[in-house]
Parts: sequence; structure tokens; C-alpha cells
Amino acid sequence: MTINDPDMLAELTSLYPAYEKALMENDVATLTRMFWDSEFAMRFGAGENLYGMDEIEAFRKARPAAGLARTVTRLDIVTFGTDFGSVTLEFSRETPAKTVRGRQSQVWVRLPEGWRIVAAHVSLLS
Amino acid sequence: MTINDPDMLAELTSLYPAYEKALMENDVATLTRMFWDSEFAMRFGAGENLYGMDEIEAFRKARPAAGLARTVTRLDIVTFGTDFGSVTLEFSRETPAKTVRGRQSQVWVRLPEGWRIVAAHVSLLS
Repeated sequence: MTINDPDMLAELTSLYPAYEKALMENDVATLTRMFWDSEFAMRFGAGENLYGMDEIEAFRKARPAAGLARTVTRLDIVTFGTDFGSVTLEFSRETPAKTVRGRQSQVWVRLPEGWRIVAAHVSLLS
Repeated sequence: MTINDPDMLAELTSLYPAYEKALMENDVATLTRMFWDSEFAMRFGAGENLYGMDEIEAFRKARPAAGLARTVTRLDIVTFGTDFGSVTLEFSRETPAKTVRGRQSQVWVRLPEGWRIVAAHVSLLS
């Protein structure tokens, strides 16, 4: 199994920004499409645990669009073989009271339908 | 790519409890051995961001052994093909003041040296 094959790294590096852009714009259709359409997809958000595409999509649709802006302060991508990638990042978000620091990790898998996020975890640094 | 092949699920289901046991016992050697020995291994903990085996191991060794007990309230394992698995769980921990709820996600990869955790993220529910 090749770790960090340059072509694989380039592929995920070029794909990831579409997620960040969709998040900033609260583009629910794109965010939903980038996740695996499966009952086994999951997402731990800062304040919620979501299991399956239905719960993930319902959360996205109900979420207020305000306050989603963030600055990615570190981004790491590690690939395994030709079909798996781990994408992790640190971010900061300005609020009226303070700067909030958080982390996001995503598992990307190349499925027949294309690259999809199969699991994600977002949290604030305690 | 086979999702949730029964043999694969059984394999990771039988492996995971060793991690939980080592965590409860603060068995640093086992916890370290279960992670990928690589500069690309990473772990977002509740209060720290660790990159590479050296940082992960140093954190484990310096961590107080007290207060690690937790109850796993939900555990999900999803496998992709023969070499990749996502292990996620919810836990609760009793403190003098309250019950704390948290989440853990791990990416498992079957490497030449065996199954290893290549990325992990632990957080408390905000």
C-alpha cells in the first residue's frame, strides 16, 4: 500500500477546497453531495452526533447560515493506497467575545460514485 | 469495494476492545503500539492537537492516569474493502460535578505491520 502517493495527494488536495467553499456559502446541496449517501455515513459536529445521510442532511438544512465563516490554520492530507484519505484541519473562528479554535477530521473514500466523505468529526478545542 | 464485509467487521470488532482496555489501564505501551508509528499519524484530543508518533507518545507518557474511566454508550464500525475501517463511539464519563459526554473517532488501516490507528479525534460534546 502506497502512503501519500503524489497523484493521490494532488487529487484530494484539489478536491478539498470545494468542501470549505460550500461550508462558507452554506451550500447544503454540495455539502450533502460530498458525503456518502448511506445509512453508515456519520458526522460528529461540535454539538451533535449524526448517523446516516438523512440525519446529516436534515441538520444541514436546519442550520442557521450565519456564523459559519472560519479560517483554516492548518490542513493535513494523508492518503493510503488509491482509495482512502484522511483529511484533518485546524480552524479559528472570530466571535464577538473571542477567537474560537476548532478541529475537523474527515475520512474520504473513493467509491464507485466518486470520492465521498464517509465519516467526519468537528469539535472545539476544550 | 465491499462495505462492511462480515469477516472484516468481525476482525475490527475483536480488535477494538484492546484499545479501550489499554486506555482504562493507561497502558501507554499498548496505546502507542496500536497507533501507526509514523510522522503522519495524528490525534486530536479533547484539549490538544498531536502530529506524529513522537507527539502522541509524549502526550500519553505525560498524561495523569486518573480520570480516564469512561463508559462506551455507542460503538459503530464501518469497513471499506479489506484494509480500511472507521471506528466511532460515544462515551460518558462521571465527574464529581456532572456527567460528561464525549465522542471518539478513529481511522484504522491494515498496514504491513498489522492494523494501526492512523488518525483519531476525541472531543467533548459542546
